[in-house]
Amino acid sequence: MAKSLRAVDDHYWNCAALATLPSITKLYVTHSHHASGHSLTTWSIFAIASLLWVVYGLLNRKPAIYAGNIIGLVMNLLMVNGILMNAGWTY
Amino acid sequence: MAKSLRAVDDHYWNCAALATLPSITKLYVTHSHHASGHSLTTWSIFAIASLLWVVYGLLNRKPAIYAGNIIGLVMNLLMVNGILMNAGWTY
Repeated sequence: MAKSLRAVDDHYWNCAALATLPSITKLYVTHSHHASGHSLTTWSIFAIASLLWVVYGLLNRKPAIYAGNIIGLVMNLLMVNGILMNAGWTY
Repeated sequence: MAKSLRAVDDHYWNCAALATLPSITKLYVTHSHHASGHSLTTWSIFAIASLLWVVYGLLNRKPAIYAGNIIGLVMNLLMVNGILMNAGWTY
């Protein structure tokens, strides 16, 4: 059972990255006027964290980690950019 | 260098969980009227993912994984609840 749960490990980052897509759609397309409700702090920390995972995954040659985190980094940076564009400087 | 980056692994979940705090503050306290800008899909998937990590961490007896993810699960469920409370059913 523990072994089958390793699948969580392997697909987690792709999954987390794709889970951010509806947030990005809302931020850029359908709910831009609610951009200030998003936390710039949260998404900036997520972006920094995914960058660290990319470095970690590359150094340890683990594609399951760096591939998903490169997508995650792009998603998180899009969130940071969208908040700055639509809400300006916020916490 | 790769070894020192293992610290990313050990503290990542606590960090990610705490990073969600400003989002929760905005959702419940300062920017509740912008709740519909948040994606229920994103935060629900994050909640399910952290639940899976809790199970994985417990089965593999890795406190660095389950401890942070229990906090993360609470945070993500608070986001889901706050969106449902303040914006109702949304994508």
